[in-house]
Amino acid sequence: MKADAQLEKIFEAFKQRTITRVFYVACGGSSALMYPSKYFLDRESSQITSEIFSSNEFIHRNPQSLNENSLVILCSHKGKTPETTEAAKFAKSKGALVVSLMYVEHAPLADESDFIVNYSWISAGNMEPMPEIMNYAILYKLAFGLLYVKEENKKYEKLVTSLNSLSTVFEKVMAQNEDVINAYAEQYKDEKIMYTMASGANYGMAYSFAICILMEMQWMHSHAIHAGEFFHGPFEILDKDVPFILLMGLDETRPLEERALTFLKQYGNKLVVVDAQNFDLTGIDDEVKGYLAPLVNNVVLRMFALALSKARNHPLETRRYMFKVPY
Amino acid sequence: MKADAQLEKIFEAFKQRTITRVFYVACGGSSALMYPSKYFLDRESSQITSEIFSSNEFIHRNPQSLNENSLVILCSHKGKTPETTEAAKFAKSKGALVVSLMYVEHAPLADESDFIVNYSWISAGNMEPMPEIMNYAILYKLAFGLLYVKEENKKYEKLVTSLNSLSTVFEKVMAQNEDVINAYAEQYKDEKIMYTMASGANYGMAYSFAICILMEMQWMHSHAIHAGEFFHGPFEILDKDVPFILLMGLDETRPLEERALTFLKQYGNKLVVVDAQNFDLTGIDDEVKGYLAPLVNNVVLRMFALALSKARNHPLETRRYMFKVPY
Repeated sequence: MKADAQLEKIFEAFKQRTITRVFYVACGGSSALMYPSKYFLDRESSQITSEIFSSNEFIHRNPQSLNENSLVILCSHKGKTPETTEAAKFAKSKGALVVSLMYVEHAPLADESDFIVNYSWISAGNMEPMPEIMNYAILYKLAFGLLYVKEENKKYEKLVTSLNSLSTVFEKVMAQNEDVINAYAEQYKDEKIMYTMASGANYGMAYSFAICILMEMQWMHSHAIHAGEFFHGPFEILDKDVPFILLMGLDETRPLEERALTFLKQYGNKLVVVDAQNFDLTGIDDEVKGYLAPLVNNVVLRMFALALSKARNHPLETRRYMFKVPY
Repeated sequence: MKADAQLEKIFEAFKQRTITRVFYVACGGSSALMYPSKYFLDRESSQITSEIFSSNEFIHRNPQSLNENSLVILCSHKGKTPETTEAAKFAKSKGALVVSLMYVEHAPLADESDFIVNYSWISAGNMEPMPEIMNYAILYKLAFGLLYVKEENKKYEKLVTSLNSLSTVFEKVMAQNEDVINAYAEQYKDEKIMYTMASGANYGMAYSFAICILMEMQWMHSHAIHAGEFFHGPFEILDKDVPFILLMGLDETRPLEERALTFLKQYGNKLVVVDAQNFDLTGIDDEVKGYLAPLVNNVVLRMFALALSKARNHPLETRRYMFKVPY
């Protein structure tokens, strides 16, 4: 596959230079999908640290630790998000190695990058095209590949075989959850606000669902609450009428999500739980399950997004500002 | 002052060891007040990187870059937040230098720390005790002091003289904003949701106001939106009926906040703008203005919190879960 050939070249580049710091730079949903990769690097490497910045914050903050020993990974679906293109240019001016993911083959972002990875031609079983999921696969490969090249971290091989099992896993998860998701959509279609919550590798999914699906695509109020922070302020908002979507993963922070679940069950009433532990993950290696669980939960979230949009008669494509007015 | 004597000892400890990484670890409001310090370190140091983690996430994520070359700075008002005490213990077990801020003199957190700094006896002009503001002053001194000791960064001296001018600045800001803040409180007292927004050094203040004031103390829905992320999803929620509190600082990311302001003015109608540029900051050195602006904006936010609680007849001290039920 083309993406794999592109990745091979990038891994060669990893070998050629010192990399002590990774900056994940993107906007909105593209930024959110980088969270599990940072979680992986945090847990697995003592030598390579990482950061996630929204593109414009990255440029204006101008972190002094960005230099020729940095790897900057960017992502923009159509490769023409102006802030992200500008961020790539900025990163190159600092001497960093610049790798960009995009759905299309040619775009302004590509022109400002040392390497690009396209994910446009990969399909996931019998689902409709799910470019976000394919973004993730590439991002995982970049992070795991970096530590494979630099630190002989063997999880890369387990990641690759596990990714190959994903489409089968997704099909089973979809079949298993269709009815319950449709029922949830009917139940919550008239809500004005829905909070999301998660921790660890899953937090990015909670963030993405809040800002991209609920706020952007459904014009519903939302906020992604960190499951640990919940008990230090946000939980006071909870009552029987306030809906929460809780993501439960398989990574080491699961106890935080479990604690939140107990509280939500006791004091709330409107609760959507998406728990990777309930799904058949055959084919995903135990050593990478925690890292990949967000991908599986995300399939359920996407089903929920679609069902919600139908129940609310508000298509996911409807926008009032994005790409329509100057901003 | 006692805090300064404590800080002197800590600076001595900084001299004695290699420090390549700072972890800011706390929960809720105590975590939020660490954001400007990270902003400072990001902008000023190429050698010392930093992270902010909620206490429980820090422990369970178990970042491999935490080691004997790490400085871990924790904060808990009463020094008995269980997750934060546990995080201090965890950090010490990894060999890190552990420094904890607290309002009280003796607490479980103190027992797990190498050094503590108390901020209980400092007062800010004629305001009521504002421990949060005093937290900030100590946190700034720690970050600026670290780079002063390690990298001869001269902004420490400018910081110290500027901090000494703060109480006068606060008094003027309070007098200037009293009427407008009371009017805002009257205007927004019946809202069910208020978003906050900021970028750079100010984002922590937006986060804190959203989760600690609005959600925790007023049981109003909220979400702190990053001003750069706003245009990549969240802005679709905006209409004439959705209230936003926009913080505008004086740091390098101000263009992000200005862009958000333009959009909010065009498509929104319910807008509270707290802009440090409108305040008399005499006595604050130009070179540290961007870093200290969040403190000044926070004074206005605290006035707003108090006015809102009175207008809504919902005292800031009212809780239904915190310290009242097991969790």
